[in-house]
Amino acid sequence: MDLAERVLSGDKRGVARLISLIESEDDEAYVQLGKLHSHTGNAHIIGITGPPGSGKSTIVDKLAKAYREIGKTVGIVAVDPTSPFTGGAILGDRIRMTDLTLDPGVFIRSMGTRGHLGGLSRAASGAVRVLDAFGMDIIILETVGAGQSEVEIVSHAHTTIIVEMPGLGDEIQTIKAGIMEIGDIFIINKADREGADKTSMEIQAMLGLNPNKPEWVPPIIQTIARKGKGVDAVVEKIEDHYKYLKDSGMFEKMIEQGIREELDIQIKSQLGRIIKNNIDDKTLEKLVKDIIDKNIDPYSAAKFVLKDIEDILN
Amino acid sequence: MDLAERVLSGDKRGVARLISLIESEDDEAYVQLGKLHSHTGNAHIIGITGPPGSGKSTIVDKLAKAYREIGKTVGIVAVDPTSPFTGGAILGDRIRMTDLTLDPGVFIRSMGTRGHLGGLSRAASGAVRVLDAFGMDIIILETVGAGQSEVEIVSHAHTTIIVEMPGLGDEIQTIKAGIMEIGDIFIINKADREGADKTSMEIQAMLGLNPNKPEWVPPIIQTIARKGKGVDAVVEKIEDHYKYLKDSGMFEKMIEQGIREELDIQIKSQLGRIIKNNIDDKTLEKLVKDIIDKNIDPYSAAKFVLKDIEDILN
Repeated sequence: MDLAERVLSGDKRGVARLISLIESEDDEAYVQLGKLHSHTGNAHIIGITGPPGSGKSTIVDKLAKAYREIGKTVGIVAVDPTSPFTGGAILGDRIRMTDLTLDPGVFIRSMGTRGHLGGLSRAASGAVRVLDAFGMDIIILETVGAGQSEVEIVSHAHTTIIVEMPGLGDEIQTIKAGIMEIGDIFIINKADREGADKTSMEIQAMLGLNPNKPEWVPPIIQTIARKGKGVDAVVEKIEDHYKYLKDSGMFEKMIEQGIREELDIQIKSQLGRIIKNNIDDKTLEKLVKDIIDKNIDPYSAAKFVLKDIEDILN
Repeated sequence: MDLAERVLSGDKRGVARLISLIESEDDEAYVQLGKLHSHTGNAHIIGITGPPGSGKSTIVDKLAKAYREIGKTVGIVAVDPTSPFTGGAILGDRIRMTDLTLDPGVFIRSMGTRGHLGGLSRAASGAVRVLDAFGMDIIILETVGAGQSEVEIVSHAHTTIIVEMPGLGDEIQTIKAGIMEIGDIFIINKADREGADKTSMEIQAMLGLNPNKPEWVPPIIQTIARKGKGVDAVVEKIEDHYKYLKDSGMFEKMIEQGIREELDIQIKSQLGRIIKNNIDDKTLEKLVKDIIDKNIDPYSAAKFVLKDIEDILN
């Protein structure tokens, strides 16, 4: 049995191995993902992002349990793009310690940066598709932090949740302004701390600044995830949002958009491989030396490399 | 005169226009950058990153003035990858208000995210090369934030400075652990605040965790940039690092590495264009529909699109 068949037969180890293959950007991973394609498109993908310390992992834990209670299977992909040094397994390790891991209806995976950021976002997207084909009803894509990297990663989700907490200083609010617009649902966790209402109002004000009047008005929910308070309200809003996406035709558009991006990525990466196999190293090394010596510039060197292909096509 | 000629003739408006062209990812921008290539490689590129509120802009301001005093010209590229919403012009606007703008030996440019992150990093790299060819001795590449995006952007610098300040909570330290390894020089700014020595020691301890014993031991400098305190020490360490790069042969390696990356980027982007010009939209739309309908998967669809090219080459 190949890895795709193992995933479809319900083999968790097959799922884990295929995700590892995707992380290593092995071409075979895309062959296997290709085989899974016709089994995808059934999961509801929920993205969760927010600053460290806001209790995201606890919320993910409680959400997963809530979904398990209503009989849905749950996949969790925890991504840490901030740490090329540690490999970013912190998040996943913390989650793994909970009792969720023993539940056969749950699959948890953590990922860190391996080199290039684009690679991480692609790997996260691939992992989500594997879990989708594996039959997970709900897939939670969790990222730590609040920068452009996280925006790119949660772009693979249908419903995006931003977690905040009371009492973050103004400086931190500023850096996060950029991700406000991607939130479909806002959670103020640790709402028993002072300033929860103030934070709610600040988010409300920031949302009001968005010049595009959206049909979906993002709800702001106060939770105390540690005690399970407010989690049911979050699940309810997630389901409302899912219904909105389906009814408005947005869901279909998201699927189409995802497919366009995936096709583009595939064409580019396969092209890269074709080129690599067809340009001999000596030519390339000679060109690098010529560019260093300023006999030619990178733009013209690339044109030279691609001349044969262009001539044939035109 | 084309834009490259205008840049080489010392025309600041030409510089500004070429950078705008690079930001819009216009093919012509790369033709012009190609023409500038033989005039690049002379500037010392200094990257500065750190959390908002740490006083990075003030440091950049003071550094620029210090370099002007010793007769060096200075280019500043301020990049804000955190804000797709505002266009990220905050940083640049703040800098523009200082008296530096009136100095003919200084060129300042700010950039925000326009769509894809990779694009921003490429645009920043292009802007740096324009300023290099324009004859700026020192180019300061400033980014806000402390995530993977910033790591990618400052990777275009020869000397990377990380700015911290006393009294940031543990939670914030955690998110920044990932960027510690890229720092060649550490600044604790606002050192008159409580906890400066503690922050110094924490950074010292974190640096000690790096398993690769580097030849260059990153210095940690306390500054009060607002009052100009410690800025001379920073300049001195920057010059020490530059000498280290040159003497150790690291500088040459960086140039070569940069050229390899640039050639790779050029080959991929030109290929993308060749493909786009050679696949008719109808075929592509048909494929997207087929993928949605699950008649074919994205991997196989890409293979189909590229079949002709591959056949010719093999």
